[in-house]
This record gives sequence, C-alpha cells and structure tokens, in this order.
Amino acid sequence: MTHFRYDLLATDGAARLGRLHTAHGVVDTPAFMPVGTAGTVKAMLPESVAATGAQMVLGNTYHLMLRPNAERVARLGGLHAFMNWPGPILTDSGGFQVMSLSKLRKMDADGVTFQSHIDGSSHRLTPEISMDIQRLLDADVTMAFDECTPFPATPEQAAISMRLSMRWAARSKQAFVARPGYGLFGIVQGGVYPELRAESAAALKDIGFDGYAVGGLAVGEGQEMMLATLDTTTPQLPADRPRYLMGVGRPSDIIGAVLRGIDMFDCVMPTRSGRTAQAFTRRGTVNLRNARHQDDPRPLEEDCGCPACRGYSRAYLHHLIRSEEILGPMLLTWHNIQAYQDLMRGLRAAIAEGRVQAFAAEAARLEALGDVEAM
Amino acid sequence: MTHFRYDLLATDGAARLGRLHTAHGVVDTPAFMPVGTAGTVKAMLPESVAATGAQMVLGNTYHLMLRPNAERVARLGGLHAFMNWPGPILTDSGGFQVMSLSKLRKMDADGVTFQSHIDGSSHRLTPEISMDIQRLLDADVTMAFDECTPFPATPEQAAISMRLSMRWAARSKQAFVARPGYGLFGIVQGGVYPELRAESAAALKDIGFDGYAVGGLAVGEGQEMMLATLDTTTPQLPADRPRYLMGVGRPSDIIGAVLRGIDMFDCVMPTRSGRTAQAFTRRGTVNLRNARHQDDPRPLEEDCGCPACRGYSRAYLHHLIRSEEILGPMLLTWHNIQAYQDLMRGLRAAIAEGRVQAFAAEAARLEALGDVEAM
Repeated sequence: MTHFRYDLLATDGAARLGRLHTAHGVVDTPAFMPVGTAGTVKAMLPESVAATGAQMVLGNTYHLMLRPNAERVARLGGLHAFMNWPGPILTDSGGFQVMSLSKLRKMDADGVTFQSHIDGSSHRLTPEISMDIQRLLDADVTMAFDECTPFPATPEQAAISMRLSMRWAARSKQAFVARPGYGLFGIVQGGVYPELRAESAAALKDIGFDGYAVGGLAVGEGQEMMLATLDTTTPQLPADRPRYLMGVGRPSDIIGAVLRGIDMFDCVMPTRSGRTAQAFTRRGTVNLRNARHQDDPRPLEEDCGCPACRGYSRAYLHHLIRSEEILGPMLLTWHNIQAYQDLMRGLRAAIAEGRVQAFAAEAARLEALGDVEAM
Repeated sequence: MTHFRYDLLATDGAARLGRLHTAHGVVDTPAFMPVGTAGTVKAMLPESVAATGAQMVLGNTYHLMLRPNAERVARLGGLHAFMNWPGPILTDSGGFQVMSLSKLRKMDADGVTFQSHIDGSSHRLTPEISMDIQRLLDADVTMAFDECTPFPATPEQAAISMRLSMRWAARSKQAFVARPGYGLFGIVQGGVYPELRAESAAALKDIGFDGYAVGGLAVGEGQEMMLATLDTTTPQLPADRPRYLMGVGRPSDIIGAVLRGIDMFDCVMPTRSGRTAQAFTRRGTVNLRNARHQDDPRPLEEDCGCPACRGYSRAYLHHLIRSEEILGPMLLTWHNIQAYQDLMRGLRAAIAEGRVQAFAAEAARLEALGDVEAM
C-alpha cells in the first residue's frame, strides 16, 4: 500500500529535486501538470500526454461538478478510469473557477452559492462539499477549499479574505477522508503582503497538510512581484512537504519559482496557446498564424522530439491554422506540453547536477534571442 | 522502379480481391480511402490513419489549389511530405468541388472559371490545369477533369454533360505526364441512364486509362438506383484495371458496390460523422450526443480495437461531445475510420474465401438489429 509521501532528493540553492508518491504513481519534481479541465487535456489523447513525460494532470472540480457531475464520475469508476488517465491526478477545490467563471454568486461565511455558467442552474460549494466532490472524483491530491483573493486588494481586504480561507482550510482538513496514497494540500493566501503570507503559512502548518500550495498569484501582479512574494513565502513552508504554485505560468515564471523552491505547477497556457497558434520554444513564443511561416520548410523547433516538430514544416502548421483544421491545435498542444515537460526535465537534471543557476541563465539567454527567422 | 499496376488476385461472383501498386506503395482492394481534403484527414494524425489499416488517402485539388496552392506544396516536397503521409495518395480533379462549393462560376467548352469560397479570388480549371496541379501535388492517382452531371438531369442534359466530360477526359490524357508508378483514371458519367454510361465507358476505354472511376453517383439518386447503375456499368469496364466509385458511401453502399465489382471508395462520411457525434458500428449508427449514453459504462463497440473503444465508456464519449471537447471528434473520427477499414478487411477476407455473399447478408442482419441499449 502506497503512502502519500514526498522525498527531497537533492537541493541546489533553494531549488529542490524530489519525488512525490501517490496512490496512482510517482511524480518527479519539479513537475508541470497539464490541465485537464473537464476530464480531458484539451486536444490530446492521454497516452500522448504521458508520452511527453507528464506524470500528473489536473482536473477542475468546478467544471466536473457541473458536467458530468461528481456522482456520475464516481459511478463510472472515478476520474482516472473515466478519462483513461491511470496516473496521479490533482483536483483544485472549485473556489477559483467559481470566482472567474460564474457570473452570479453569493458568498457567506459557510461557503458560496453560484449559478452554473453552462445552464444557469444553482449550485453550492463549501469546504465540506468540495472535499466530498474531490473524494468522489478520486483525486490523489485534494486541494483545500479557499477564496482566491482578488488583485489588487488592500492589506485589509487581503487579510479578511486570507483569514476566511484559513477557517475553510481547517474545515477542509476536518472533512477530508484520509486514505493511503491520497493527500490534502493547504493553500497559502495573503496577496502580495509578506506578513499576511507568513500568517497564512503559520496557520496552515498548525492545521497540518500533506503539501502546501501558494495561491492568489499570477492574477495580474506581474512576474517581479510574484517572485518577490515567493522569496518571502517559500522559506516559511516545511521542507519535507511538496510546494505547489497554482496557475503558473510562462517558462520564465516556472524557472524563477523553481529557483525559489517550488516543486509543482499547473497552467492552461501550453494547452490554450496550442489552440490559438502560439507555440512555446526555447527561443520564445512563435505565432504560427503569421504569414512569415507560409513557405518555411523548417520544423517549429529543430531539436524537439514531439510529433509536430518531427513530421511537419512550419509551412504546414501555418496551413493547418489558416485552414482551421483540428490537427493544428492537436499538434501545437502536443508541442507545447512537450516543451514544458522538456523544461521540467532540464530543471530536474540541472538541480541534480548543481547547475540550476547556469541552466536558468542559458534559458533566459535563448529566450532573449528570439525565434530564428527563415532565410 | 515501381510501375503502376493492378493485380486481380481473386473473384467471388462480381466481387474482386486485388492489389494496386503505386509509386508510394501498395493498396489492397477493395479499399476505402479516408478523405484528407486540405492536406489532413480531419482530426487525425497520419500515423493514426495508417494504424487503422488505411493504405491510401484522398486529397482535394480544389481545396489545395486555393490554400496553400499547388506550387507551394510542390516547393515543400509534394503532398506526401507536406502532410506527412508517405503512402499512396489519390487526388480528385477539382471539378466536383467547383460545382458544390464555389458560388460564382462560369463554364465554357474549355473549362471553368470560379471564385474561391475562401476569399472570393478568381481561379480557373481546365483539363490541362487540373493535370498540372495534380502533378505538382505529386498524386499517385490523378483523376481526369470532368463535369459532375447534376441530379436529376434529363437524358439530354446528362448526354451533353457526359460528352463534354469525355472530351475533357481525352484532353486530360493528353496533358497527363506519365511517370513510373503514377496513374491516371478516367471517370464514367451519364447519370442514371445505362446507354449513356455504356457510351461513356466505351469512350474512356478508347482513350485508355490506368483505372476507371464511376462518377456522378451518390448525388441524391438513392441506393437502389445507384446499385442498378453499377449493375449495368461495371461489366463495361476492363477487368484488368481498378474501378473506383467516387464519393461512396455508407457501409451498406460499399458492400453493395463491392458485390458489383468496385475496388476503391472514398467518402467524407466517417470523418464528418466523427465531428458530429455519429459513430458507425456493425449494428448501425450511434448518436453519442443522445442522453441515453450519459451513464453507460460500456464501450461504443464491444469488439472494436480502436482507442475510442479500448479506453473509454459511452458515458465519457457523450461527456466529450456535450462539453464540445476536441477529443470527442478525435476519438469518434478514429473509431469511424477504423470501422470502415475493418469493413474493407472483412470484405477482402470474404472474397478470398469465396463467402462474400454470406458476409454481406450477416452485415445486413447486424445493421438491421440496431444498437444494443444499455440495461
């Protein structure tokens, strides 16, 4: 029987190489989790997601509770069987999407009542309901139910919001049904205010979680302020637990956060960009819709091993985008997830070899060079 | 050096088992060619298309000449390299799509001038231009340029249209640049009138082609009249050349045509249906959008080996369709192409073993039973 466990294998400055053990398998960290919002990493077969090196995906409680609904997923064998992803799954708590997607919602001290963005039906989330839904989904990592503090927020607003989230974190811990191999993560809030972040981290440590997430960032504060917040926050987190920066980010955000001791990431950017013709390469983003690619026989990225780069020219990818062919999003999403997984693999190797600063400097140099124009 | 050749390996009544040799490989017949309209079999990676057993795909001259244009495809190494399909490719002549997709067109004895449905730009197709475009695309099988006779048409209209197509067929033969492994097919026209079909077949045989297509069917005349037309037409075609029924069809259409001596097929039905939630099974079509599937843990088709049937429940496929997830069309298209290739494989085995009539009867019996409802 697998116990939920995080092994810290090596450090390089604040950067950490580790391994997370869950009921459905191990995850080498630093790790990037592709987002499988509604039970699918958009435009990808799950075996293709796994082929990129991804070991864990994220599912959205908000989306899945509305459609197909958690009880149905449970009857069909849980989210792993439902979406044909046998590996580890993390689900968020639903709180963030209620704020970002539902137009009509009513907060109270106990939870939030909201209208579905799909059909207007009324639903409710509380810490207890969120724990129950994530248990029905069979998530290896369950996230505590919290309120995502808006940005900007005054120190007073941020404090009120954070303290509500800490009371909900205690109720989440209370409601979470412990099972071997399954973990519950608390979420540090407190906006961009170091003393609030410290208070939040202390409150969560008092409750005790299997992992600690940093929430409420990547909401408009900018990379510099985000990394500054991590500078003061990650030292407050227990070294023997995984640390997850929610909803982040661009490759340079991820590198900056890994240098500050973050182990886990998720973001819709590689998948969403794959559906809007934006490709991530080591030399920055490339917009395949641009007419400069229409006669370019070169692959998107020379030394990438993904199917998009192995089998096709930029001219073809451009043609797919212009023709609105489904294969365009399929190939670009695959490339982007591959690029993110290659980045994480590179970071892990660099930490293991004590050269993560040099790795970060080289990544920044390449990105600054920009895309190579065709002759 | 491969010479373009058709080997007739066995017959079972009028049904034929054969093998077509082309510059880019062999095609076992009877064969169904998935349609790769704009240089992609929609929602499929080419290696997935090949994994279903498909050996040859179809490209549309009309679409490819407008975008990305034939000269560009040629500069990029031809259609095989462009779309990453190393196997045989057949291109149509463009005539049919000019009639069905372009709103403004002007026919004359020499060819047709038309407006692009994409940007309104003016283009021209003649037998000579169509041969040139198909050569630039590097099609293993080039189709003669013809006019698709509308349905219904009076005998007089059908005769005038057919005779124009026969003059264009002669010009196509004249303009076609013979190369080892590459073939040119003529197209029998004449609507639903046996004497016109006979006149057309005789005219094409006089010109001499590497294969003979039957065109102008599946345009609204119904299965019975289509098969009756084949009854009188295929006996007029040379036994040592492949026979291709253009744009057909449903599984029962294909079985009926194979029983009448047809060797090759193409149709958008499996791919288009895959994007509109319609799945082909041996027990008829199944609409995955229907709410009856929402709790059904069974696979779409029990003994199908495609990824959609191996890895997912009907409930999940239904969820993907309802959520408008790209993976829905991806999986259903894959299943439908697999179902069509399995049908062709079954037909080939049955012809080889002299039991094609029994195969056809069993297929009709299963389809009449209809889909198995969940308990």
